Amino acid sequence: MSNTCGNVFRFTIFGQSHASAIGVTMEGLPAGIRIDFEKLQRFLDRRAPGQKGTTPRKEADRPEFIAGLVDGVTCGAPVTAIIRNENTRSGDYDELRYIPRPGHADYTAWVKFGEARDHAGGGQFSGRLTAPLCIAGGICLQQLEGLGISVSARLVSVGEETDPDKFLNCVEAARAEGDSVGGVIECTVTGCPAGLGGPMFDGMENRIARAIFGIPGVKGIEFGSGFAGAHRRGSENNDPYCIENGAVRTRTNNAGGILGGLSSGMPIVFRAALKPTPSIAKPQDSVDLRTMTETTLSVRGRHDPCIALRAVPCVEAAAAAAIYDAILEEQ
Amino acid sequence: MSNTCGNVFRFTIFGQSHASAIGVTMEGLPAGIRIDFEKLQRFLDRRAPGQKGTTPRKEADRPEFIAGLVDGVTCGAPVTAIIRNENTRSGDYDELRYIPRPGHADYTAWVKFGEARDHAGGGQFSGRLTAPLCIAGGICLQQLEGLGISVSARLVSVGEETDPDKFLNCVEAARAEGDSVGGVIECTVTGCPAGLGGPMFDGMENRIARAIFGIPGVKGIEFGSGFAGAHRRGSENNDPYCIENGAVRTRTNNAGGILGGLSSGMPIVFRAALKPTPSIAKPQDSVDLRTMTETTLSVRGRHDPCIALRAVPCVEAAAAAAIYDAILEEQ
Amino acid sequence: MSNTCGNVFRFTIFGQSHASAIGVTMEGLPAGIRIDFEKLQRFLDRRAPGQKGTTPRKEADRPEFIAGLVDGVTCGAPVTAIIRNENTRSGDYDELRYIPRPGHADYTAWVKFGEARDHAGGGQFSGRLTAPLCIAGGICLQQLEGLGISVSARLVSVGEETDPDKFLNCVEAARAEGDSVGGVIECTVTGCPAGLGGPMFDGMENRIARAIFGIPGVKGIEFGSGFAGAHRRGSENNDPYCIENGAVRTRTNNAGGILGGLSSGMPIVFRAALKPTPSIAKPQDSVDLRTMTETTLSVRGRHDPCIALRAVPCVEAAAAAAIYDAILEEQ
Amino acid sequence: MSNTCGNVFRFTIFGQSHASAIGVTMEGLPAGIRIDFEKLQRFLDRRAPGQKGTTPRKEADRPEFIAGLVDGVTCGAPVTAIIRNENTRSGDYDELRYIPRPGHADYTAWVKFGEARDHAGGGQFSGRLTAPLCIAGGICLQQLEGLGISVSARLVSVGEETDPDKFLNCVEAARAEGDSVGGVIECTVTGCPAGLGGPMFDGMENRIARAIFGIPGVKGIEFGSGFAGAHRRGSENNDPYCIENGAVRTRTNNAGGILGGLSSGMPIVFRAALKPTPSIAKPQDSVDLRTMTETTLSVRGRHDPCIALRAVPCVEAAAAAAIYDAILEEQ
Repeated sequence: MSNTCGNVFRFTIFGQSHASAIGVTMEGLPAGIRIDFEKLQRFLDRRAPGQKGTTPRKEADRPEFIAGLVDGVTCGAPVTAIIRNENTRSGDYDELRYIPRPGHADYTAWVKFGEARDHAGGGQFSGRLTAPLCIAGGICLQQLEGLGISVSARLVSVGEETDPDKFLNCVEAARAEGDSVGGVIECTVTGCPAGLGGPMFDGMENRIARAIFGIPGVKGIEFGSGFAGAHRRGSENNDPYCIENGAVRTRTNNAGGILGGLSSGMPIVFRAALKPTPSIAKPQDSVDLRTMTETTLSVRGRHDPCIALRAVPCVEAAAAAAIYDAILEEQ
Repeated sequence: MSNTCGNVFRFTIFGQSHASAIGVTMEGLPAGIRIDFEKLQRFLDRRAPGQKGTTPRKEADRPEFIAGLVDGVTCGAPVTAIIRNENTRSGDYDELRYIPRPGHADYTAWVKFGEARDHAGGGQFSGRLTAPLCIAGGICLQQLEGLGISVSARLVSVGEETDPDKFLNCVEAARAEGDSVGGVIECTVTGCPAGLGGPMFDGMENRIARAIFGIPGVKGIEFGSGFAGAHRRGSENNDPYCIENGAVRTRTNNAGGILGGLSSGMPIVFRAALKPTPSIAKPQDSVDLRTMTETTLSVRGRHDPCIALRAVPCVEAAAAAAIYDAILEEQ
Repeated sequence: MSNTCGNVFRFTIFGQSHASAIGVTMEGLPAGIRIDFEKLQRFLDRRAPGQKGTTPRKEADRPEFIAGLVDGVTCGAPVTAIIRNENTRSGDYDELRYIPRPGHADYTAWVKFGEARDHAGGGQFSGRLTAPLCIAGGICLQQLEGLGISVSARLVSVGEETDPDKFLNCVEAARAEGDSVGGVIECTVTGCPAGLGGPMFDGMENRIARAIFGIPGVKGIEFGSGFAGAHRRGSENNDPYCIENGAVRTRTNNAGGILGGLSSGMPIVFRAALKPTPSIAKPQDSVDLRTMTETTLSVRGRHDPCIALRAVPCVEAAAAAAIYDAILEEQ
Repeated sequence: MSNTCGNVFRFTIFGQSHASAIGVTMEGLPAGIRIDFEKLQRFLDRRAPGQKGTTPRKEADRPEFIAGLVDGVTCGAPVTAIIRNENTRSGDYDELRYIPRPGHADYTAWVKFGEARDHAGGGQFSGRLTAPLCIAGGICLQQLEGLGISVSARLVSVGEETDPDKFLNCVEAARAEGDSVGGVIECTVTGCPAGLGGPMFDGMENRIARAIFGIPGVKGIEFGSGFAGAHRRGSENNDPYCIENGAVRTRTNNAGGILGGLSSGMPIVFRAALKPTPSIAKPQDSVDLRTMTETTLSVRGRHDPCIALRAVPCVEAAAAAAIYDAILEEQ
């Protein structure tokens, strides 16, 4: 199921960058949940463009809830929210119709869907589809907060830079050169009870990875010590148990809060690798799919020089959806 | 669905380390497939213990196909294969019943399943469950081979060592010290057609990640340039298109053969981080779950000092299952 | 998954009778399908009110396709269509909030969802939700037609009346007495290839039944000779094979075109039992859920005295969705 | 998923009539359930052959639980049970390989799976596959009993006979003539809490129907007044509410305990139509698939002249699985 994620809390994302609307339908939300729309909007605003280091294009990502709520409270029916796209069906992308942008899904979408694909603005592969992901995840974040669980992501590197004070400089430097830059996001979930998830294919790593790779541009994920842990000895990487305030804890958290696919009660910690924005002004080699000849392409328009910036709330949203689903499943 | 993976080719793994048997049921295999049992056995033997650097315990992982075949050919019914466990229900693990091994699922399984959990040999969390995974994946590998697709994994590091000639030394050094060591496995899939997968949650990264995290001990996965790519500029990381022999190719493959969740026709390349074997002879801090007091534990018995060695065919199996599923879905 | 149906062609229905909108998201439609909107509207009009024998309330069930299409052609992304509800959130149903209408879901929804339920107009249990079912099914009907498959349903009885000429009289007689009447709908699918479906739980009977019971008011379904066949001898009920124009056919079709869960190539024939509209003007015994005391209720407002009339296209829609899904799965 | 049923309690049936084994894997069973094997065996014995009116062939349907249990108690891992087939791969069915038995899946399986199909004994379409269904359902019955829920099915007609005292005579009469006879089974579930299920496609009718049509030979299902209700007026068919011992009840139960897809707290009542056993000794018209010519067939061997007799516990098993799944989902 390509656009659906989750077992009990299942959400299905629909829409394309230049369709009439984008949106999400959520099944499995308990009846009686009051949605804090202001808090949700503040969360959505975190991924909206127009912030420092992002594209100046202004979008008003204001969801309209068209189903599933009565006076702002879930009624037990699927909850559907949509965001209308403005300025759709523009001709800006006609040039790109047969000249795929390197690093984008233009070529692979052409192979899969042929002439029928929606190429405008990246179609269904657009980062714009993370707006409905943030609607779903934002609602989950509110529910998790009520359970004492917090999900918090932050950039830990932009390009080779690891000093947060210098992240925006790094982004601006890339932009100034008609280039872009990648980043790594770390997400920490605290307050999560032990025992969520399962062995094999529905473990917490599998669930979180499945949701996180739904964010365009994510090319890697690691939990706890991750790849660094693979270079260690067991005696270094194992987390010794101890008793703290009568509860079982580990002295370290190289497992990232997950053992055998099950949450351990320690913070769930993972990092996601976001590739540099593929759309760059610098000329790039491409091909013309009509003539099967090589050509050169300069991507015009205003693009985020670092998608990792706006992906931070998306990572929180995807993680929150995966964890809330595991919690509902456990109840 | 914890133990089931796949959309069209769906396989469900069952069993515990010390149950009567472990096994797998595969749905979605086309009728008329002849299974090459000898080739399958050779594949299973690659993950079997008793090889250099692995535990000397001898297991005969010979699957019995109890359903779904007529004279070795699939008949369209679900295919079920089982492997009998020998020496089951031993008392070796009684000591560990309430003293969780650091880095294992002992504690989290106790939280989730309580007294009813099967703690012997790691129960359903045991690496032994990768044997049925390799049955399923081994059959997929045969099918993929028939389509001209090869899946090949190899160790690229053991601990901090990256020279393959020194991997076994590194493992032996860890073993000699009552310790263990992690490793990184790289997997390359060649011959895969473009257009497999989809956007959002059923992309090739999501599918492969979901399967790979089903292998106990995997704590990270990255595709193409992965985390390294997150430190780069777009102009470095984008893969320029070119025409080769009339076909669209990319000059580099930082995308790891996947763009927008869809295979690009370039080799699919990913790396998985395997943590060091948690079972080590060195004394470790643990707790007694009955008394909620701290204690010390030395894991006895013969354990692989480096699970990454035997995980290599498991990674091939998981990748093959994910890719074959995507191929069946596309047809 | 309560509101989702299908394996490859999966559609999810959302909305409530008095929500802002009702709608449907369809996944799995091949890219490149041109939707004939006029034909779809004519199909939707068949279930719309205002026809002979139905409620005089006028609804304009004009779907807006907000996602998944480019110039009326599917692009490979999920297709979402919505219908705005007018005159929503009316106070007409306040009286019924705690006095459940016999034969409706009022009481069971109160048990399941409590105070949070949407009781207005039956909420998510309303027959209005068959409008998005007809959008999904209407698109499937167009695709099936292109494959030479026709799906055609008709009323075979209204109450005890089996003469179609007298159906409307029968309905009017019930209405005049403040009562309602049930009906049986027979659906015939011709042109369906043999071999669709499967054994056990995804057989054609299971699939069609699952979809048909999604229509409010359906309380029974039978295939071929159905319940009558259960009263027969095998020699009467078996369908003898013969060769017609070089093809295998059966002389009779007591199997309703399905053997072992697989389509046989003969017409698929089934009948669905629609209960009488529960909303009747006649006084009925009910209870007050606040005081847990007995009371009497007369359902006011204009209701269809025979939902079976408007259910005819819904049965076609549900059957078409089930069959198109099986066809996509087979390809 | 053809051989899998259920959302939370999911079971997958595998095997063919003449495979090495048949069996079932159950996911979603809570850890800590003690299985009463003797009670389960008594339940399985109810569907076993050798009883009055059934085939004299003796099968020992003794399941071996190979995974998921520790000392007879579920441990949280998938539970797998198998039954070995004896006298498999016999040549009895060679004659039938290309001459399909009317009323069986022989022809449709040939169309779907071609030469690779397992035709022996009906292969995966055999009624023998109801043995693992009864293992799964038998375990559910034990759990439901612990919750005060009973599931009880009985024959209400055999052929045209409705007097239970005469059922066996009716069966014997058919057998004596080389013929067979159908039957109707009624199932009643008492003690079921209100609020199970959901609207649309996961309602109790949909779930039960999906499971029941998994039993070979079922051609119809109706809930409560079912088809008879479709011939009534609303004032006759609606179930008036009343208060009994402080609880909401209905005076009648034409709804069969289900309103809007949700259980109402009244007994769930449904009837299933079982067609006459297709295998009859009487000569029947068939075709030779090799030559595409017409021929005549007399099915030899010992067959149940009335599958409805042995289907009674199967109906209980399927209903129990569907209801237990809905209960787990609700918790």
